[in-house]
Amino acid sequence: MTEKDKVLSANLEFYRAFAMGDEAAMERLWARTLPVSCIHPGWMALRDRESVMRSWQDILAGPDAPRVMCHDEDAVLYGAVAIVTCEEALGDNTLVATNVFAQEDGTWRLVHHQAGPLLMRAGHGGSGGNRPN
Amino acid sequence: MTEKDKVLSANLEFYRAFAMGDEAAMERLWARTLPVSCIHPGWMALRDRESVMRSWQDILAGPDAPRVMCHDEDAVLYGAVAIVTCEEALGDNTLVATNVFAQEDGTWRLVHHQAGPLLMRAGHGGSGGNRPN
Repeated sequence: MTEKDKVLSANLEFYRAFAMGDEAAMERLWARTLPVSCIHPGWMALRDRESVMRSWQDILAGPDAPRVMCHDEDAVLYGAVAIVTCEEALGDNTLVATNVFAQEDGTWRLVHHQAGPLLMRAGHGGSGGNRPN
Repeated sequence: MTEKDKVLSANLEFYRAFAMGDEAAMERLWARTLPVSCIHPGWMALRDRESVMRSWQDILAGPDAPRVMCHDEDAVLYGAVAIVTCEEALGDNTLVATNVFAQEDGTWRLVHHQAGPLLMRAGHGGSGGNRPN
């Protein structure tokens, strides 16, 4: 199993925990000693572990916890840090996400997550075009 | 100047180049040998340098190039990789962004950017609450 495989495996575990409302697994996935941050869709950045974990507890415990599925994921490694980009399917909605993992105690753990709505797709060979704001 | 200061300086240079439509500076800011990726608001992930740079050229050359300003930025270093979270003010809109920098040839260069709309703020001491989708 390559390090890239391990990162993608950790990423899938993140979405499994998210989809299953598995708070204990979500807690294990996030780094403990390295600093963490999280930007939920539409939200300001949360920049400390307590706020980040509390936000996930609220999301996972909520009655409307979304059944998320991850697809089109790719991981790029920069030494002991890895950036995963992927899409998140939630019912009829699709989000695009950045998940940053870092090695902590020999394990790839989440240090940052941002997700935002996917509103359009580039055509084949198309560029990003004008930035929608 | 600490490494964190250098990262925040590179982050400000990114927003200066963005605001001024400075394509040459934008080109210099992004890593050349390390892989790069970019998620513009509403867009799918761009995962190669050519697509990323072409998207910025389109944005910066557009007649409606937004006058962006960065604020509330914070940088966290993970060795030779740094994650900046910040807000982007564009007229009446505010976005939240992740900018990941990595050291390349002794310089902090952008390897990843994601921005998405800020729709609500947590109250003082508030958690992320339910994740809006």
